[in-house]
Amino acid sequence: YSTEKEERDEIGVVTGLAWTEVGGEILKIEVTKMDGKGNLVLTGSLGDVMKESARIAFSYVKSKAKELGIDPEEFGKYDLHIHVPAGAIPKDGPSAGIAITTGIASVFTNRPVRSDVAMTGEITLRGKVLPVGGLKEKILAAKRAGIKTVILPKDNKEEVMSDLPPYVRKSMNLIFVDHIDEVFKIALREEKKEVENQESES
Amino acid sequence: YSTEKEERDEIGVVTGLAWTEVGGEILKIEVTKMDGKGNLVLTGSLGDVMKESARIAFSYVKSKAKELGIDPEEFGKYDLHIHVPAGAIPKDGPSAGIAITTGIASVFTNRPVRSDVAMTGEITLRGKVLPVGGLKEKILAAKRAGIKTVILPKDNKEEVMSDLPPYVRKSMNLIFVDHIDEVFKIALREEKKEVENQESES
Amino acid sequence: YSTEKEERDEIGVVTGLAWTEVGGEILKIEVTKMDGKGNLVLTGSLGDVMKESARIAFSYVKSKAKELGIDPEEFGKYDLHIHVPAGAIPKDGPSAGIAITTGIASVFTNRPVRSDVAMTGEITLRGKVLPVGGLKEKILAAKRAGIKTVILPKDNKEEVMSDLPPYVRKSMNLIFVDHIDEVFKIALREEKKEVENQESES
Amino acid sequence: YSTEKEERDEIGVVTGLAWTEVGGEILKIEVTKMDGKGNLVLTGSLGDVMKESARIAFSYVKSKAKELGIDPEEFGKYDLHIHVPAGAIPKDGPSAGIAITTGIASVFTNRPVRSDVAMTGEITLRGKVLPVGGLKEKILAAKRAGIKTVILPKDNKEEVMSDLPPYVRKSMNLIFVDHIDEVFKIALREEKKEVENQESES
Amino acid sequence: YSTEKEERDEIGVVTGLAWTEVGGEILKIEVTKMDGKGNLVLTGSLGDVMKESARIAFSYVKSKAKELGIDPEEFGKYDLHIHVPAGAIPKDGPSAGIAITTGIASVFTNRPVRSDVAMTGEITLRGKVLPVGGLKEKILAAKRAGIKTVILPKDNKEEVMSDLPPYVRKSMNLIFVDHIDEVFKIALREEKKEVENQESES
Amino acid sequence: YSTEKEERDEIGVVTGLAWTEVGGEILKIEVTKMDGKGNLVLTGSLGDVMKESARIAFSYVKSKAKELGIDPEEFGKYDLHIHVPAGAIPKDGPSAGIAITTGIASVFTNRPVRSDVAMTGEITLRGKVLPVGGLKEKILAAKRAGIKTVILPKDNKEEVMSDLPPYVRKSMNLIFVDHIDEVFKIALREEKKEVENQESES
Ligand SMILES: [Ca+2]
Ligand SMILES: [Ca+2]
Ligand SMILES: [Ca+2]
Ligand SMILES: [Ca+2]
Ligand SMILES: [Ca+2]
Ligand SMILES: [Ca+2]
Ligand SMILES: [Ca+2]
Ligand SMILES: [Ca+2]
Ligand SMILES: [Ca+2]
Ligand SMILES: [Ca+2]
Ligand SMILES: [Ca+2]
Ligand SMILES: [Ca+2]
Repeated sequence: YSTEKEERDEIGVVTGLAWTEVGGEILKIEVTKMDGKGNLVLTGSLGDVMKESARIAFSYVKSKAKELGIDPEEFGKYDLHIHVPAGAIPKDGPSAGIAITTGIASVFTNRPVRSDVAMTGEITLRGKVLPVGGLKEKILAAKRAGIKTVILPKDNKEEVMSDLPPYVRKSMNLIFVDHIDEVFKIALREEKKEVENQESES
Repeated sequence: YSTEKEERDEIGVVTGLAWTEVGGEILKIEVTKMDGKGNLVLTGSLGDVMKESARIAFSYVKSKAKELGIDPEEFGKYDLHIHVPAGAIPKDGPSAGIAITTGIASVFTNRPVRSDVAMTGEITLRGKVLPVGGLKEKILAAKRAGIKTVILPKDNKEEVMSDLPPYVRKSMNLIFVDHIDEVFKIALREEKKEVENQESES
Repeated sequence: YSTEKEERDEIGVVTGLAWTEVGGEILKIEVTKMDGKGNLVLTGSLGDVMKESARIAFSYVKSKAKELGIDPEEFGKYDLHIHVPAGAIPKDGPSAGIAITTGIASVFTNRPVRSDVAMTGEITLRGKVLPVGGLKEKILAAKRAGIKTVILPKDNKEEVMSDLPPYVRKSMNLIFVDHIDEVFKIALREEKKEVENQESES
Repeated sequence: YSTEKEERDEIGVVTGLAWTEVGGEILKIEVTKMDGKGNLVLTGSLGDVMKESARIAFSYVKSKAKELGIDPEEFGKYDLHIHVPAGAIPKDGPSAGIAITTGIASVFTNRPVRSDVAMTGEITLRGKVLPVGGLKEKILAAKRAGIKTVILPKDNKEEVMSDLPPYVRKSMNLIFVDHIDEVFKIALREEKKEVENQESES
Repeated sequence: YSTEKEERDEIGVVTGLAWTEVGGEILKIEVTKMDGKGNLVLTGSLGDVMKESARIAFSYVKSKAKELGIDPEEFGKYDLHIHVPAGAIPKDGPSAGIAITTGIASVFTNRPVRSDVAMTGEITLRGKVLPVGGLKEKILAAKRAGIKTVILPKDNKEEVMSDLPPYVRKSMNLIFVDHIDEVFKIALREEKKEVENQESES
Repeated sequence: YSTEKEERDEIGVVTGLAWTEVGGEILKIEVTKMDGKGNLVLTGSLGDVMKESARIAFSYVKSKAKELGIDPEEFGKYDLHIHVPAGAIPKDGPSAGIAITTGIASVFTNRPVRSDVAMTGEITLRGKVLPVGGLKEKILAAKRAGIKTVILPKDNKEEVMSDLPPYVRKSMNLIFVDHIDEVFKIALREEKKEVENQESES
């Protein structure tokens, strides 16, 4: 599809991976901030566990403001909206945790997210990455979408390595992590200004 | 009907399209702002997915305030009310997304919405336009209402082109878009002042 | 009944019309404002659609403050209470829309409502009057209550004219409208001060 | 019972009348104000209709502040608590309306309520008193409790006069009213100061 | 048990009595205040009637601030937390009313509650003590726990005196009250300062 | 597993113990504070009783601010988030009470929690530690995780001593407590600064 080629690295847009009854699927996580009072708006027919994931992600970024170079007062000046299209499809589970956290960090640090990286993994309040399900289907979905780099929970490594056909494993860049800091290093580009220039050069 | 002739380009009134069990239907989206504190009021027996559409639409316009020439402080000075008549008929789904977004943009930019344009399409937080269902019935409903220009999601183009009888296709001006910015360019007129003058001339 | 004779034109009291399984009925809409912060209190065992009607009515009056000669800051200084007796009888539907809107406009403009006028019709956020059901029974209820002037939606005119027995039609003053402004012109008297004088003369 | 003899005219304590499956019953309405922000607290296992009655009563007193000699700013300085013992017995219906209104008026005017007066009747936002059910049983309950003066809705008069045994009617002081102002005149004593003196004389 | 011996008179800890299907039980009511804004937090798997009891208790103490020697502004400076262990056991009913009221009064007056006194009784907003059920079982539970003084509603006196075996009655100090003021006099010690000294002397 | 070796003493991370149908399990309690207004956020698919435990824990720490060396104004400057991974697994019951309390105390005193200590026990508002269930399975879970020190409710001591196989009892350091203060003494290290140095030395 040509649509994939159009994809640019954007602030607040992260490529997650969902497991469905008919296979894996690309799941775009959209995060936007706007003038406000620190409220969190969640849309996309999200279930309770997924809404809690978003709360954990938001709290994690807030509690690590200093480390991420964010002025903590910023959080109170904006409302944050997290949406996961398509709007009418119910979604749930904790596996979008690291993608949501990455989207929030992107929005408050002005660092674009690499659109050629997909990810799945539960986040905890300490930033630990916990194992999730449906890995094989999710990795194949990333492959079908032309995405080679996939970030996965380290505790899923053994399972992935034994379940995934060798020809898939070899064609993909699978990165296993056990802390969200590793995700940020891989998926977040430099602050917007630099990226903008870079873009205009290409 | 003479009622259609009376229609004027108004601020905050957008012509959406709904699919029902007995065919497509014109759906008027009404958006009004009033002195307030930034609250969003939703009426018209709207279901959860449609309410979320309205939240996404509102956040999108807020997050693009600068691009749209809106002072961001305006959002906190008004309450926004979105109503979809008739009040007793339950409505749901994400397909009114671009119409609601256009209505909100109209209200905060003082740009009237073209009453001779109908539209359907899901909106995402990035402004992408996602495909929806019931296209054939919706286009026929627009035609019956004497509306020739219909804005549709680009990802529905192939389906529309193959399903729609050629005589309908030829008599209509079908515009396929994949971003809300294209919708604004087509459906929003210049800022109110100019339009008012124009109206008094006709 | 002598009670009907006692009726005076009051601020905030509007005569609506309800349809019930055993015929039409007079429905008094009571609107009061009191020192507050702009809240809306709704009582009378109202269903969701009727509560939304009240929200639409309130937003309409707020959004037309200038045209109605109301200082917009007034809305934030008062709480508004809308009650529809009798308290224990469940009520629903959009057909009290224009009556509620008239009651709110009355309260904020200090213009008494004509007690010899009954009305039914759905209101939209733009002030359009939409058709409702049970017209025949409602008109007969007004007649029984000694009320001759009834305001009705223009889109119900054909139906009313064909369904209503000629002897009823002739004895009544049926006014068909398609915008709430027409309702205000008919049902709202001059501002309280003048009316008071007028009353004391009769 | 000697307990009845102890009864004193208190501020905020009104004698209502309830209808139950096993006959009528005395229902004490307790109203207290305390430092606060204008909130309304309702307890006593009250149903929705009875809670709405309390809201109507509160709004009525607020909207008539001037006529009642209450500084409207008082309402925002206190929270109001309305309780109807016994706490575990579910109660509902609009018939405590005039009793609750009298209790609130008592609390904000510092006028004690006559403990030798019982009352039942629905209140509207305009202060009208609407008819209620179970009159015969309620009047007998008052009689059993040694209360001779009972305030009742005027629209129940005919029914009461035909249903009540003549020997009961003759022994009671039944007062039929159609506006809450009449209730206040009968049931509210002079402002606390005077009453206190009077009490110490007896 | 030696645990009973350890018991000290504490501020905000009151010994209530519960009735269960397998007999009466001691129920500790814990009340704590902390810096806050006047909010009330209720925990212990409490049912609606018991939560309302706590609201009544809180309002009673607030409305009697002057009589109890409490500066009314104190209530707005603290949040109040009322907990009834054990946390997983559902509890309901109005019979803890006087115990909760005593706990709140203790916390705001700094007067410790006598740990050798148990109590049961419903509270009203005027401070009246209403009768409750399960008296025999509750008194036996107090006896088993080594508590001799039990405060009970006066309206339960006759029932208690006829139902309780004489040998129990004689060994207990049963105090029947009909107003919460009597409870305070019995169960609340002098303000903390004095008590502390007294304690260090023993 | 090498993962256990990595464990460090962290602020706000406490090792709780859960009972499940297939045996005991380690339950990490994560507590984080962030700039805010004193709100409490709870995630981890927690049931009502467990949410109440968290409220009790928070109130306890607030009410003991002085004793714990915490400036009470701190509580209003931060929001507190408590999460119990894994996010999708429903959890309930009061037995995490002392672990949650310890986590909150850790966060506000800057004292790291010993990661080689596990604990289970219900907390009350006075800081009492109440008995819980599933002790044998919980202790075995701690043992399997390489944790030797387990804090338990004193009221469970007899049961634990009779149920637990002697070889387990001997290999473990079981500490029975009846007040949370004892837990703090055992599980909380010195304030962060010292600990940090200590860590860098090892
Ligand atoms: Ca595209
Ligand atoms: Ca998921
Ligand atoms: Ca028309
Ligand atoms: Ca739709
Ligand atoms: Ca009358
Ligand atoms: Ca209706
Ligand atoms: Ca008595
Ligand atoms: Ca009743
Ligand atoms: Ca002990
Ligand atoms: Ca109880
Ligand atoms: Ca690891
Ligand atoms: Ca548990």
